[in-house]
Amino acid sequence: MVRSAVILNYMGKILVIIGIAQISVVLCAIIYSENEVIKLLISALITIMTGFMLSKTFAHNHSINYREGFAIVTLGWIAASLFGTLPFIVSGHIPSFADAFFETVSGFTTTGASILTDVEALPKSLLFWRSLTQWLGGMGIMALFIAIIVGLGARANQIFRAEVPGPISNKISPRVRDTARALWLTYVVMSAVLFLLLWAFGMNIFDSLCHTFSTMATGGFSTKNQSIGYYSSPYIQWTITLFMFLAGVNFALHYLIYKKKTLSQYWQDKEFKLYSLIIIVASIIAFFGVLHISGGEEKARAAVFQVISIMTTTGYATADFDIWAPMGKGILLVLMFAGACAGSTSGGIKVGRYLIMLQRAKIELQQMVHPRAIMPLRVGDRVINDALVINVLQFFFIYIFIVLVSTLIMSIMGLDYVSGLTAVLSCIGNIGPGFGLVGPTNNYGFLSDTAKYLLSLLMLLGRLEIYPFLILFIPQYWKE
Amino acid sequence: MVRSAVILNYMGKILVIIGIAQISVVLCAIIYSENEVIKLLISALITIMTGFMLSKTFAHNHSINYREGFAIVTLGWIAASLFGTLPFIVSGHIPSFADAFFETVSGFTTTGASILTDVEALPKSLLFWRSLTQWLGGMGIMALFIAIIVGLGARANQIFRAEVPGPISNKISPRVRDTARALWLTYVVMSAVLFLLLWAFGMNIFDSLCHTFSTMATGGFSTKNQSIGYYSSPYIQWTITLFMFLAGVNFALHYLIYKKKTLSQYWQDKEFKLYSLIIIVASIIAFFGVLHISGGEEKARAAVFQVISIMTTTGYATADFDIWAPMGKGILLVLMFAGACAGSTSGGIKVGRYLIMLQRAKIELQQMVHPRAIMPLRVGDRVINDALVINVLQFFFIYIFIVLVSTLIMSIMGLDYVSGLTAVLSCIGNIGPGFGLVGPTNNYGFLSDTAKYLLSLLMLLGRLEIYPFLILFIPQYWKE
Repeated sequence: MVRSAVILNYMGKILVIIGIAQISVVLCAIIYSENEVIKLLISALITIMTGFMLSKTFAHNHSINYREGFAIVTLGWIAASLFGTLPFIVSGHIPSFADAFFETVSGFTTTGASILTDVEALPKSLLFWRSLTQWLGGMGIMALFIAIIVGLGARANQIFRAEVPGPISNKISPRVRDTARALWLTYVVMSAVLFLLLWAFGMNIFDSLCHTFSTMATGGFSTKNQSIGYYSSPYIQWTITLFMFLAGVNFALHYLIYKKKTLSQYWQDKEFKLYSLIIIVASIIAFFGVLHISGGEEKARAAVFQVISIMTTTGYATADFDIWAPMGKGILLVLMFAGACAGSTSGGIKVGRYLIMLQRAKIELQQMVHPRAIMPLRVGDRVINDALVINVLQFFFIYIFIVLVSTLIMSIMGLDYVSGLTAVLSCIGNIGPGFGLVGPTNNYGFLSDTAKYLLSLLMLLGRLEIYPFLILFIPQYWKE
Repeated sequence: MVRSAVILNYMGKILVIIGIAQISVVLCAIIYSENEVIKLLISALITIMTGFMLSKTFAHNHSINYREGFAIVTLGWIAASLFGTLPFIVSGHIPSFADAFFETVSGFTTTGASILTDVEALPKSLLFWRSLTQWLGGMGIMALFIAIIVGLGARANQIFRAEVPGPISNKISPRVRDTARALWLTYVVMSAVLFLLLWAFGMNIFDSLCHTFSTMATGGFSTKNQSIGYYSSPYIQWTITLFMFLAGVNFALHYLIYKKKTLSQYWQDKEFKLYSLIIIVASIIAFFGVLHISGGEEKARAAVFQVISIMTTTGYATADFDIWAPMGKGILLVLMFAGACAGSTSGGIKVGRYLIMLQRAKIELQQMVHPRAIMPLRVGDRVINDALVINVLQFFFIYIFIVLVSTLIMSIMGLDYVSGLTAVLSCIGNIGPGFGLVGPTNNYGFLSDTAKYLLSLLMLLGRLEIYPFLILFIPQYWKE
């Protein structure tokens, strides 16, 4: 049974959190003496009041049940995205709803695709809101919710798992609330360190904060039209490279290593190992794709930056990679299918799933040699049962299937298949830029509203990893 | 245990069959009074003698064991491809080994990708050999072998299944030899009908025969530079369209329907239904991609022809689809991931696998709603167990994974990613043409030898559906 009162109540609570976040945008506008103060305050109050009214109107004492968990996650994300458009629309800077929705979903899902041609024309308060949506969406709106709100009961774990990306989530604590708090704490501390480093290397306070938000969330929104290419300082670029890499690692691993104070634990994690290995190999390949750039360090920086940016699904650019030599573009295209680690802030299919699928492929062949042998699949200490193997393989299939169907729909809407395919890959993978018309020096503004809604849907599907979203479309879900 | 004597003996027998096929090429050269008679005779004799010597030297009374079955299929195909190059090389018309190997593998695997710029410059005998390799490879070298050679014992079934494409093979008879014979018979009868139709519609005898071979095998080699675009007759084009469609259907289904004399059985086959449905929808989409072509029938013919040609992995062209509007190209790109029915002569992933994966995806979601429910997956009357589901999903993953890695390698070799990706998709899917530099008006001749070997490998992997090939690279396979 799915009780709408229960869902609406929790959606209200989520909106209150989003509304409070919007208050910080008002403060930003006040600090920089912008004209938008009143309009932004109105946006924030609409969000808070709606949330407050929803949670009061549908007040109840029920604990949520298993099915309602999925609806709360999916509809909660949709509600946040809808009310997240208000600062853009009410301020008049992004008047079209389709545009504002695309930009907001792109923010919360940490995609970083934009409809804006001139980002720098926005007031600072709205730039701040763009980056803040990424930071909130990165570690997870639901995880924040769980960390703050009391009374979710046993289902908090399910909601948490539905939002945290990837097939394996190491539990930090048997209590999900403590886990959510520990992860958010790790996220905040790492963000603080990144902020101080960027500031120390000469970025101003405002840009440091915004880029900290987008980097830690593997989001990709920048306050500059040239993205990170605006900052010529190698220190700034390498710092962002390092923190994109770290944001692509399972945050539970960061936390456990902080607790145990042994860095060697990183290397004992199979997923971290494969993730690092892919980045090293891909960077070497990309290096030979940027031979047109002069200087050894410059080549290496451009290659490593872009590889990590795409692999972690951040989507920052320091160069127009659409003009790179074939092997440079080829490796970036292939990395669009990758994604970083499970439990990180990144999107995409993720290394952890590839690890399971590749190991299982080996077992499939070994079982053809020894048909009667039983070969359990192990990742680290954990035995992966057939149900999880099917779940992971099935995820891969649905993901690729959605990519193919969406590419077809984009082409029916008149987009050439290179732009269409990479736009779809980029949005469902929460990356940001693609190739061709949606390449790193272009934006998504020229697309039709229908195309923008389709891509917004793909971003949400990608961020919530498909299942919690699709399940709402199964008739059985709503039946008794 | 894998005994090389057993494998070499059977490889010898396969070579004898290939050599006998090459004798028919000599006859063709004699009929058309070509200069190549002696050279082609030498080629045929080398193949027959090598085969004869191998099977005599390694004569034995052992029946083959389970593991040897895989090696016989895979190495048998490689041996056939190696000796199949002889007519091209010895005649001097394709002097480069890499080129000849690519062309031969493309023939046997029914891919239809060519390195030739000017097909019409070849003597008729070699055009005949190209088409004949497709016809032999279409229904299967091993199936022919099983139908002809006695004494394979219980393992014939395994060899047969390793070669017949698709996850489900309806057995026609409990005796695999009778099944192989029934399938080959169906294939021969349908080929005869197609031949007569093409001839009746004004194609000359030679071209009718060659196009019959390539069409029934869903191969795609033509005797004309313009492919089927050379024949302006709508009758010829529609006839080929129909027979490509029929060749994409499970031949066991054709045979059973012939036996039971009820055409309605087609529509009771779920895979046939989905296959037809995809073609109808895709043709409608493609229709709007060819609005530049004048005339309603002409538009429909171009759209349906090209959709069926790509979907069945034949690869014929009547138009340069690389200049079609986005939705026309988009649907063809997506169809490159499809393939026709299991048990047909087509390549690719195949509709039967999609059927299993899509139905399983629905069950995955339903099981999230009812976690304790047990929901068996049925396709037709048959319950698909978890092992087969994993096998199919795993196949899909390995297939896409190989596509991604190969695209990367092609880009490292300097090919742009559009040409690289579609060349890879086209070769592993046994289709033929791709987009860009390997589009329908171009050919694969400009590629480096390394690229040609990689693509040849992909064609073989695609034709043998990956597993029988990959298993030879597992260390356990060769161990006691």
